[in-house]
Amino acid sequence: MTQRIRLSDVARHAKVSTATVSRVINNRPGVAKDKRRAVLAALDVLGYERPAQTDSTSGGLIGLIVPELSNPIFPLYAQEIEQVLSTEGFTPLLCTQSPGGITEDEYVRILRERKVKGIIFVSGLHADADSDPRRYADLADTPFVTINGPNPDVLAPSFSCDDEDATARAFAHLLSLGHRTIGLAVGPNRFIPTQKKVAGFTAAHEQAFGDKEPAIVSSLYTMEGGQAAAAELLKRGCTGIICASDPMALGAIRQVRQEGLRVPDDISVIGYDDTPLIAYTHPPLTTIRQPVARIARAAAGTLLQMISGRSIAASSLVFAPELVVRSSTGPFVP
Amino acid sequence: MTQRIRLSDVARHAKVSTATVSRVINNRPGVAKDKRRAVLAALDVLGYERPAQTDSTSGGLIGLIVPELSNPIFPLYAQEIEQVLSTEGFTPLLCTQSPGGITEDEYVRILRERKVKGIIFVSGLHADADSDPRRYADLADTPFVTINGPNPDVLAPSFSCDDEDATARAFAHLLSLGHRTIGLAVGPNRFIPTQKKVAGFTAAHEQAFGDKEPAIVSSLYTMEGGQAAAAELLKRGCTGIICASDPMALGAIRQVRQEGLRVPDDISVIGYDDTPLIAYTHPPLTTIRQPVARIARAAAGTLLQMISGRSIAASSLVFAPELVVRSSTGPFVP
Repeated sequence: MTQRIRLSDVARHAKVSTATVSRVINNRPGVAKDKRRAVLAALDVLGYERPAQTDSTSGGLIGLIVPELSNPIFPLYAQEIEQVLSTEGFTPLLCTQSPGGITEDEYVRILRERKVKGIIFVSGLHADADSDPRRYADLADTPFVTINGPNPDVLAPSFSCDDEDATARAFAHLLSLGHRTIGLAVGPNRFIPTQKKVAGFTAAHEQAFGDKEPAIVSSLYTMEGGQAAAAELLKRGCTGIICASDPMALGAIRQVRQEGLRVPDDISVIGYDDTPLIAYTHPPLTTIRQPVARIARAAAGTLLQMISGRSIAASSLVFAPELVVRSSTGPFVP
Repeated sequence: MTQRIRLSDVARHAKVSTATVSRVINNRPGVAKDKRRAVLAALDVLGYERPAQTDSTSGGLIGLIVPELSNPIFPLYAQEIEQVLSTEGFTPLLCTQSPGGITEDEYVRILRERKVKGIIFVSGLHADADSDPRRYADLADTPFVTINGPNPDVLAPSFSCDDEDATARAFAHLLSLGHRTIGLAVGPNRFIPTQKKVAGFTAAHEQAFGDKEPAIVSSLYTMEGGQAAAAELLKRGCTGIICASDPMALGAIRQVRQEGLRVPDDISVIGYDDTPLIAYTHPPLTTIRQPVARIARAAAGTLLQMISGRSIAASSLVFAPELVVRSSTGPFVP
């Protein structure tokens, strides 16, 4: 049933010699790890079924807990982390949540029963300042790292996008376009990323406008949350709206249009996260990009070092975001 | 640390009495399953941390294997299936793949070692006509179902969107708009969904145009694949392009624009899948919607029946897609 593999096609795609392709397919030694991976990737991309003997034995399971998959930032994190772990011979088990479904604590219990070697938490309860951090202290014998929402009470390496810098950059962009009433739409206040986004925004606002009360609305991270927050911010006269997620920004744009206004002619909207399809929205969304690949690589790499027995300090690594200017922001027109 | 829960808020959100909320929170008996779930969902949505005692014991693990997470249809399937399984007290473990990473066979081995109760394959090797179906025969003692790419050689219940009907509907829509040179951009030919899409398209094409050679290009399911296929179809004079995935359609739109043409004024483009954010593309994408929630519910429900010991025939359930007309298709202008 298995189709014949054309070695030359695979070699060209993997940028290796046909001899190397042959060695990988026949599972012979003497092939560097990165070349071996390039050949396997080429087989996958070109649609050949991999010869069974190339299956590697797993170094162990790693739990990967994300809050949900509707916001495309979480599938993106999962995909990037999966790639790092599988290259290193580990197998990720992805745990995803939904309202009323399985909780983070239940997943942790199940993963530990299944003897995972380590856990990566993406925007988990560690990011919730109202949540009890002792649940993570109980985890001491399972190495773990956290992504986004750095929590000083959780003793583990944390990797996050600089949320303060993110809103400060977004604010500076709108200010440079002439906007003078700029609002912030964030998620629930108990989340550490929300608190940091508010801090960055408030500091930048104060520097620009002194005592003037900053317009900040706390809502949900969803499209509906963004729409509700935007309605409130528009009422307060904002011409520039900074949102805490890309789905929120799409909701904000919907609200602007429902009020008979245009983006960016009348109102500028900035998102947060940036994932591949977001560049194709109408209008293409100006947003703050999280360096997902870099964060994923650092977090997964550190966890694997911990698993191999290296002692790693519970430090907090903060990654700089980028402002990606597309077409949902424009000059303020009085 | 845990914040006080306002019972009235939760009751209003869950549409139950405050007494019911209190019973769920204190884990007392006498609450119907759907009400209990509504209360837990309300706690999650309103951002309250769930009291620990509401954690339920899992009925067991279910493996859920998807090919990747870049095409938003797969996170959507994962999210819908997670919701069904967790409502029924089961815990899904999501396994995702990337080129060069862990294969489906390796995931299956790992899941079976971990004693999963069953496995759901979404667009797996069962959907690849060139792949050896015997791997699924070896699975006989682990109940499993497949989603999309129904394979008569795999003896398990299969649930899929009607791919033949999908391309026939897309074709009829373009025909009714006056298009007379209509092309199809599909994924690799070895996939059963590709074969069905080609069959549906070819039959509709023959009915409309008789012997005229249909324009069909096989490429990858990605944005880049769609762009390459569109370049070829435009060369052949197509004014309407049907794509086998939404990312492919976005790639096709990019190609149309790179050639100095407009969508839908000069060229109409139709996608396939439909996920929540796709409605926000520029222009909003006309696409064929897979009934993801219905397929997920049926597949997961059937698997749970099999796990509970009911014998289920290896039948193939086919679900009708819907044409969702937005703004990437328009009348043919000579």
